[in-house]
Amino acid sequence: MSSMLVVGSVAFDTLHNARGSFPKVIGGSATYASLAGSFFTDVQLVGIVGRDFPDELVQTMRSRGIDCDGLEVADGPTFHWEGQYTDDLTSRTSLKTELGVFADFDPKIPERFRQTPFVMLGNIAPELQLSVLDQVERPKLVVADTMNFWIDGARPALEKLLRGVDVLVINEEEARQLSGHHHLVRVASALLDMGPRTLVIKQGEYGAWLFAGENIFNAPAFLLEAVDPTGAGDAFAGGFLGYVARHGNTEPETLRQAVIYGSAVASFCVEGIAVERLLSLSREDIVLRVQRFRDLVDFKPV
Amino acid sequence: MSSMLVVGSVAFDTLHNARGSFPKVIGGSATYASLAGSFFTDVQLVGIVGRDFPDELVQTMRSRGIDCDGLEVADGPTFHWEGQYTDDLTSRTSLKTELGVFADFDPKIPERFRQTPFVMLGNIAPELQLSVLDQVERPKLVVADTMNFWIDGARPALEKLLRGVDVLVINEEEARQLSGHHHLVRVASALLDMGPRTLVIKQGEYGAWLFAGENIFNAPAFLLEAVDPTGAGDAFAGGFLGYVARHGNTEPETLRQAVIYGSAVASFCVEGIAVERLLSLSREDIVLRVQRFRDLVDFKPV
Repeated sequence: MSSMLVVGSVAFDTLHNARGSFPKVIGGSATYASLAGSFFTDVQLVGIVGRDFPDELVQTMRSRGIDCDGLEVADGPTFHWEGQYTDDLTSRTSLKTELGVFADFDPKIPERFRQTPFVMLGNIAPELQLSVLDQVERPKLVVADTMNFWIDGARPALEKLLRGVDVLVINEEEARQLSGHHHLVRVASALLDMGPRTLVIKQGEYGAWLFAGENIFNAPAFLLEAVDPTGAGDAFAGGFLGYVARHGNTEPETLRQAVIYGSAVASFCVEGIAVERLLSLSREDIVLRVQRFRDLVDFKPV
Repeated sequence: MSSMLVVGSVAFDTLHNARGSFPKVIGGSATYASLAGSFFTDVQLVGIVGRDFPDELVQTMRSRGIDCDGLEVADGPTFHWEGQYTDDLTSRTSLKTELGVFADFDPKIPERFRQTPFVMLGNIAPELQLSVLDQVERPKLVVADTMNFWIDGARPALEKLLRGVDVLVINEEEARQLSGHHHLVRVASALLDMGPRTLVIKQGEYGAWLFAGENIFNAPAFLLEAVDPTGAGDAFAGGFLGYVARHGNTEPETLRQAVIYGSAVASFCVEGIAVERLLSLSREDIVLRVQRFRDLVDFKPV
């Protein structure tokens, strides 16, 4: 079992959806990815928070095998995002983005994290993701996530980053935006031409696709009514990489299973507000859900 | 192996898409469904055409085991629909609908078709679908398709029809429209409450779902770049029912396989303009594609 390193945002989110308003709940790409990964392996977290960030949560993460020594605590407020979801939860509007101490985030990978073989570059500025790549030493697998904001605003850095990562995990809309294509076959081909040898396209309520050479795999969506989709993509990526790190290889079957385990963790993530369901989840729950994913797609090709 | 009865439209379509214009190619819900079903079992077709309809196609259908004695030939032009697809083929606009002899279509099920155990009510007016239901005798399984036009314009008749059919096959957008819900779980629950005990929701480029009591199943989309999506839904339904009729039961595994075989036939259908790919297809092609569907979703739930 190998460890994984997660670099990304640790934040407060204020969420508004049909169920109500949830002020300053725990958020951030690295938070979700670390919690998701911690079901499978040891996690090392690198991020930045302000002095207002609850130490209780850091302790909770530590108790789950997440090494928080790379979580810098700086003077000033923690990154705070506020958003309003539509009633059907299929889209959201940003109401406020207060960067706080995150504005000056310059990820420093602690010496003892630099040889960690599995690396997750959470959804932060591509320049910062590149800086992490410069600091780590011969990782076995680097996974990166990104979003529309960077595709629009930092495309050259993002393209440079893509040439240096092994796996791109991206949602379908952003995959279309980045590739300039609509049809999945063309989208995948264009993104793989940009550098990564493995691609995961997340389709939300329609599941996910894995493209890894001849290993092409479809994961179904899990049927449920989401409570809060915040962080589901980060939980997917963290669960995916955590599963790969646990098994220490990228064999076709391992990657397929990793997509399903990532999907399973993400499906739990959306069952509660923010990280609450991830915090109440057990490995046994995940294994049972993976069996249900299997039951959803199983048939005999007589 | 049981026979299946298909009632629906037989038509000319004039198609415009990014590849060009295709005037008066063969179309119609019953045409696609019959051709798709004919890969699996004997088909009986009931529909109406004008004297302008090519006898050559009728002969082709007969040579494939499609009994065309229920295809009425009337004075006047064959139903003609003309449509323009968007370049990405995800939507289309109707340019012209010339009902011709179809305006007076009053399906008469020939005596010897009335006890056919598997019945496909293609996408025509719910009143006509109800009239077919009145004429058939104790079918084992009745499958119905419908579309937005009838949901908007003939809802009471459609609701009556749904109380009398076993399987509703419907695309996702229309399923949302008919149910008034967005989330798939709620959509399915509402539609099953309307009568059918089995529901198939087609999601186009995202695959399909089967809901049959506790038998809930997801079929992936097949990865390809469509040439022409016309008739894919009808080909799906015809392939689905043809497979069920061939096996003569609605066991959970049969229904799962039927969804995949229907998906496989539909995936071929969109590879050519109108029915051309269905006409060049072999059973062997279908079996190989089913294996590829299997490969897309297979994983070991360790």
